[in-house]
Amino acid sequence: MAELKNLTKRGENYSQWYNELVVKADLAEQSAVRGCMVIKPYGYAIWEKMQRQLDDMFKETGHVNAYFPLLIPKSFLSKEAEHVEGFAKECAVVTHYRLKNSDNGQGVTVDPAAKLEEELIIRPTSETIIWNTYKNWIQSYRDLPILCNQWANVMRWEMRTRLFLRTAEFLWQEGHTAHATKDEAEAEAVKMLNVYSTFAEKYMAMPVIKGVKSESEKFAGAVNTYTIEALMQDGKALQSGTSHFLGQNFAKAFDVQFLDKDNSLSYVWATSWGVSTRLMGALIMSHSDDNGLVLPPKLAPIQVVIVPIYRGEEQLAQIDAKVEGIVSALKAKGISVKYDNTDNKRPGFKFADYELKGVPVRLVMGGRDLENNTIEVMRRDTLEKETRTCDGIVEYVEQLLEDIQNNIFEKARKFRDASIREVNSYEEFKEEIEKGGFIYAHWDGTAETEALIKEETKATIRCIPEDMEATPGVCMVTGKPSARRVLFARSY
Amino acid sequence: MAELKNLTKRGENYSQWYNELVVKADLAEQSAVRGCMVIKPYGYAIWEKMQRQLDDMFKETGHVNAYFPLLIPKSFLSKEAEHVEGFAKECAVVTHYRLKNSDNGQGVTVDPAAKLEEELIIRPTSETIIWNTYKNWIQSYRDLPILCNQWANVMRWEMRTRLFLRTAEFLWQEGHTAHATKDEAEAEAVKMLNVYSTFAEKYMAMPVIKGVKSESEKFAGAVNTYTIEALMQDGKALQSGTSHFLGQNFAKAFDVQFLDKDNSLSYVWATSWGVSTRLMGALIMSHSDDNGLVLPPKLAPIQVVIVPIYRGEEQLAQIDAKVEGIVSALKAKGISVKYDNTDNKRPGFKFADYELKGVPVRLVMGGRDLENNTIEVMRRDTLEKETRTCDGIVEYVEQLLEDIQNNIFEKARKFRDASIREVNSYEEFKEEIEKGGFIYAHWDGTAETEALIKEETKATIRCIPEDMEATPGVCMVTGKPSARRVLFARSY
Repeated sequence: MAELKNLTKRGENYSQWYNELVVKADLAEQSAVRGCMVIKPYGYAIWEKMQRQLDDMFKETGHVNAYFPLLIPKSFLSKEAEHVEGFAKECAVVTHYRLKNSDNGQGVTVDPAAKLEEELIIRPTSETIIWNTYKNWIQSYRDLPILCNQWANVMRWEMRTRLFLRTAEFLWQEGHTAHATKDEAEAEAVKMLNVYSTFAEKYMAMPVIKGVKSESEKFAGAVNTYTIEALMQDGKALQSGTSHFLGQNFAKAFDVQFLDKDNSLSYVWATSWGVSTRLMGALIMSHSDDNGLVLPPKLAPIQVVIVPIYRGEEQLAQIDAKVEGIVSALKAKGISVKYDNTDNKRPGFKFADYELKGVPVRLVMGGRDLENNTIEVMRRDTLEKETRTCDGIVEYVEQLLEDIQNNIFEKARKFRDASIREVNSYEEFKEEIEKGGFIYAHWDGTAETEALIKEETKATIRCIPEDMEATPGVCMVTGKPSARRVLFARSY
Repeated sequence: MAELKNLTKRGENYSQWYNELVVKADLAEQSAVRGCMVIKPYGYAIWEKMQRQLDDMFKETGHVNAYFPLLIPKSFLSKEAEHVEGFAKECAVVTHYRLKNSDNGQGVTVDPAAKLEEELIIRPTSETIIWNTYKNWIQSYRDLPILCNQWANVMRWEMRTRLFLRTAEFLWQEGHTAHATKDEAEAEAVKMLNVYSTFAEKYMAMPVIKGVKSESEKFAGAVNTYTIEALMQDGKALQSGTSHFLGQNFAKAFDVQFLDKDNSLSYVWATSWGVSTRLMGALIMSHSDDNGLVLPPKLAPIQVVIVPIYRGEEQLAQIDAKVEGIVSALKAKGISVKYDNTDNKRPGFKFADYELKGVPVRLVMGGRDLENNTIEVMRRDTLEKETRTCDGIVEYVEQLLEDIQNNIFEKARKFRDASIREVNSYEEFKEEIEKGGFIYAHWDGTAETEALIKEETKATIRCIPEDMEATPGVCMVTGKPSARRVLFARSY
């Protein structure tokens, strides 16, 4: 109980609040391996719900799952110039395939006789190994499109890591599609961005801005990177999912051509798209408060918890009997419910624990409730309590879960919308960026200006947003012509 | 079509039949990385069905999922003496964390400045990293039991690999549980063996023999290894799942103690248990025939395929309309059905392809069927065809799927049962082992005799079976006393 209350407040130290919350709510923890996390059962249960929903959405849009190797020959990485440039510095490298007993008799050592001819890289992403495979799958237009996804672990050797947000190993899905035409591939990249934004808004209750990345910020090897950008409560942006139109870059790197209907040979067009356990960080930071997690009901492992307050075994038995009907009626509606009548923790401890863990609805039944046929209902998002009759309680809770889902989305949307400001001078920009949020400003379109802004203000172009007004103007820094405003922010 | 028919027959070359079938049925293929496979979408769809069912069964028995790091510090492996002995020779070792451009300007090279202080091993199994984690999770009896499972990839650098059966990287689940008492841990190991055998028999339609491994064959670091052993059509056994009672070995290696109710400090008791993509190999070899895969309906990605035979667009439209009702009625019963009215392949090609892919039931509707309100039904397991009225066809197909599930189990069970022979002399054993199957024979219980038998006959003790009669006798090799017969076979 003491430990539960000790959560740092967001206003005191947002970063520390996040780090503590992830650990105290039993979501994840650091492992013995630098930068690699252990995802604990409660955290993993949320990730499983996200996975299941995304997987259903991928399948509804015609995709299938497959599995490609964890290890990639080093030479594959070099085949696409920008790709290797982007990933070489973060690669974990396998050089040997055997250990042997140490000569001093203590422990084991790497067997120098078991050195690999060519080193293998733990995949930082799988474009290269997959396009090397697709080469054998694609001969004719009849073999296209290929619409594959894989759920996998990947590794990028980051120097500074944070649980969920940036870890050396993370879990993700990566879609890799192959198409006969440019238009079809571009449409696929956009379609999957829309799947991501629908998932973020409808399930995570997290509003996102859709757009395209600048040249400097796009994926290494992509022609275009589409992105969804969310705003965290500290005013920093978080890139939450990306979908890349890869053009023919990987087809050319791995010589993947197909015979078209007219008997002509062409390179295949490609996309790739992914979201990762980083979404867990986004979810936590979008909604949670100083009491702990706030979870959207659609992703909460436990949607409703019921706690009895009783005196003596006899009264507990009466409450058990009464609650049993509510539990089975909630379950019949597909609502996940936990009745916690364990006697080794006091109700106050249970309340704090389920608040910390973000259970959306808490029901409490005491002796007087039993007499009056009532029950206390608390909603986690607002912490409001009310006592209601048990008649119709199941329908009420069902509706309440929907209300909570909508309410936390609306709250996050209002916060995000209020954070977007148009700014017209670089001086104003420097002032405004300190306050957090998105700044919508003119930029001359050059990588130089972008780099200067980043160096001087730590702000990056999050995206060129697709749903915001686009009129020409002049760059806030150089005064040169600007085709349209773009969205800046400091980011995770 | 030509290619489809070219499947080697089991009687000609069983091993080649298997290798060809895996590739031709689009289940998996070799990758560019030695010993690592690509699991293709159709193969992965079967694996997903297995995963989903197993995961449900794990959750029903109180387990939760979590995720632990891919990489394990080399020193962890050495902490349990038998464990390191068992796995050191197959470990892929990460020694560096960065690449840089080659000095000659060609490609990338390992950056010698980015050498790890301690090498990291790609997990061959996760006991060590998990018990190092559990140390922080367990203080008191109130923290027990821990009932975690993880779905993950693992790597064992095998020298001779075969798709699904033995690959350097494979997918699996590994359960790792921690208990306050020996009895509870032993009961858990047995419980999970029973989950595996239920899954194998009820879902894979694959009969298994449950038993315990001999000392020589048990898991490196276990006190006892429980196993389920299946028989393939070539008479070789296949270990299909194992559940280990680990005693306090890993708790001692990682110093994991807990404070009991009586305030005494004790080491924690452990189990681990796993099944892998090896089950795909077992599934294929249990039921398939010279025409291709035979899949149990409960794991078939497509349970029913419907193919129209028509002349002209008009007749196709009529068949489409008629079939539509059957399709939606089948789907309403939760049966996965594919209506293949594509016009780019001839019916004969489709028939061969769906046979190869093991679709349990094929329905064909032609012009005459349309007139007569009939449909042709073929069951994949026996290849029997019959023409039936469309009235009640949905209920008929539903029952047929159940019949096929039962029939292929019974067929495999009869084959397996007929293969088990009691043998009383080593001479007879040497003769009989050549014919394949399980041999039930007396053994003196020593590792020496076991090793001799293995060396001379390539047969190993598959298990000491729990459900077979156990009376004393004398060892067939040494004539020394034997407590009971054990089950020998050659194996995968």
